[in-house]
Amino acid sequence: MSTAPAESPAPAGAQRTAVLGAGSWGTTFAKVIADAGHPVTIWARRQEVAEEIRAHGTNSAYLGDLALGAGVSATADARAALEGASTVVLAVPAQSLRDNLREFGAAIPPEAIVVSLMKGIEVSSGKRMSEVIAEATGHDPARIAVVSGPNLAKEIAHGQPTATVIAAPELAAAEAVAELTANSYFRPYTHTDVVGVELGGAVKNVIALAVGLCDGQGLGDNSKASIITRGLAETTRLALALGAQSHTLSGLAGLGDLVATCASPLSRNRSFGRLLGTGMSVAEAAAETKQVAEGVKSAPAVLALGEAHGVDLPITQAITAVLDGRLRVDELGPLLLSRKRKTEGPAA
Amino acid sequence: MSTAPAESPAPAGAQRTAVLGAGSWGTTFAKVIADAGHPVTIWARRQEVAEEIRAHGTNSAYLGDLALGAGVSATADARAALEGASTVVLAVPAQSLRDNLREFGAAIPPEAIVVSLMKGIEVSSGKRMSEVIAEATGHDPARIAVVSGPNLAKEIAHGQPTATVIAAPELAAAEAVAELTANSYFRPYTHTDVVGVELGGAVKNVIALAVGLCDGQGLGDNSKASIITRGLAETTRLALALGAQSHTLSGLAGLGDLVATCASPLSRNRSFGRLLGTGMSVAEAAAETKQVAEGVKSAPAVLALGEAHGVDLPITQAITAVLDGRLRVDELGPLLLSRKRKTEGPAA
Repeated sequence: MSTAPAESPAPAGAQRTAVLGAGSWGTTFAKVIADAGHPVTIWARRQEVAEEIRAHGTNSAYLGDLALGAGVSATADARAALEGASTVVLAVPAQSLRDNLREFGAAIPPEAIVVSLMKGIEVSSGKRMSEVIAEATGHDPARIAVVSGPNLAKEIAHGQPTATVIAAPELAAAEAVAELTANSYFRPYTHTDVVGVELGGAVKNVIALAVGLCDGQGLGDNSKASIITRGLAETTRLALALGAQSHTLSGLAGLGDLVATCASPLSRNRSFGRLLGTGMSVAEAAAETKQVAEGVKSAPAVLALGEAHGVDLPITQAITAVLDGRLRVDELGPLLLSRKRKTEGPAA
Repeated sequence: MSTAPAESPAPAGAQRTAVLGAGSWGTTFAKVIADAGHPVTIWARRQEVAEEIRAHGTNSAYLGDLALGAGVSATADARAALEGASTVVLAVPAQSLRDNLREFGAAIPPEAIVVSLMKGIEVSSGKRMSEVIAEATGHDPARIAVVSGPNLAKEIAHGQPTATVIAAPELAAAEAVAELTANSYFRPYTHTDVVGVELGGAVKNVIALAVGLCDGQGLGDNSKASIITRGLAETTRLALALGAQSHTLSGLAGLGDLVATCASPLSRNRSFGRLLGTGMSVAEAAAETKQVAEGVKSAPAVLALGEAHGVDLPITQAITAVLDGRLRVDELGPLLLSRKRKTEGPAA
């Protein structure tokens, strides 16, 4: 299935992109860039993954035998990937971003545009991913972009048409990333509402857990649609309190991402929630899926953000209580579906 | 499976509800009212349906062997059902509402609260269902309520927990209907935004057709989530132009209804769209499903409403073009997913 592998990073002088992280979304995003005609080097922590991408043009742990294409190279040496890169895409787990940046952040070229693919809130600081990047590296926030939208990685990897949102404080940086990624199946829209795009992506993981939990409890599409509706309302309330624009949350990076995640059997957060809904503990679900879904980690951080800004987040609160063992899974659905409210209004 | 059937309408003096229409939603709504402890009589046009409900407590054409309960009676005589009713629920096909009202509208008690379960826009007039009711019967609009939300009938019939929105120009009428219907699995929220609730329900059918079409064409969850997102944006634009409140559309009767419909294999509009997406004509899909989905009928009326109010409705426009044979189904997805727009904003 492989195509001719690239043996090494593209020659100096070319506009080269480094993608740090060889998971499902990082690898797929590298393929998107290569398919747009631009050279890209993936950094994989594990040598054997880098070698597989180089030698066979595949990343079988995440994308089976899908050919990544000749434009995708790989290395296990982060500094080699970063050297001379004009764009640096960060695609590591949200909670290990700061540690990763401690390791290789100094090697990010100061003039590079840094792109965050991560969806989460850092538990230790309550910060968004772009804030962690700026703080840990001193990189100019104007040159930090974030990507979010209805972007199930496996569909994109297989060339299914997909729209996405790329946001940066200044539109020029977002447009540069849009230029780098736009291809026949990947259609980026640019935005300046970084807060809205990041909050949409982070809280979505928590709402997807809730939808999965209800699924695991046998609740139907009516109930799940109610939870999606109230979940977006709670995400929007929090995002607005943090300075986002409401239309970002009703757009592709808010509603779009939430609906794609909650509709898809591919979503890790929804699948993790479903296992919890059938009565598994977090440890059992983690053993079954070989990971802890990001929403599990971000939920307490999202809740703390809400508390710090005086925003009521009933779904996040209930999920946190389930994760902490303070609420039984069979109490979750009735709690979420029977809020004491007789009229439906803007605060719903 | 039947319980003791009610042989006749409840005795005079009791607060009795008449449900006009024995389809899936009308029958289910009657069961909701009965399960809330109130007597209800269904009018079925076909004598044999009324007899089955009376004799066996089932409506097998729509709900299999599900027991409707002893509180549900039925008749094929609309005037008998309406006589003395304190609440009149209309659940006939949207496009035949006016003809039905010509037949029995004069028998609706003037003091009754009239409840519309219908989702559609009358093609001949461009009017909403509550407008048609007021116009055709002269009933006081303050006593006309509308019901919408993530309300897949079959789930409700089986007692799955569900929230709904009941709107009337004055909250008292909506609250009376909420009082009549609230039970252990059905949770009504009241509202005064009749326009928003009716538009959400009517345009949703058209968007569900579009999502079904994309499904039939093999597009994935990323694409479908984009269409749901843009579909809600277009519904909201139209509703606002007609005087609705934006939070109604981001609530249960807008987003909630749309998400439930587009997620569910039970949706007739989505299923109809899926058949069109596989290449069937409208006539072939109608033959296969034994009906023409309401979205097919309402689409041109929704489009005309948009044109009359200067609102751009690209998805409705594209669906209308497919239904008219002016656009091929394989051109629909690319058209909807590649709008010439580089930034995502409030008008998206």
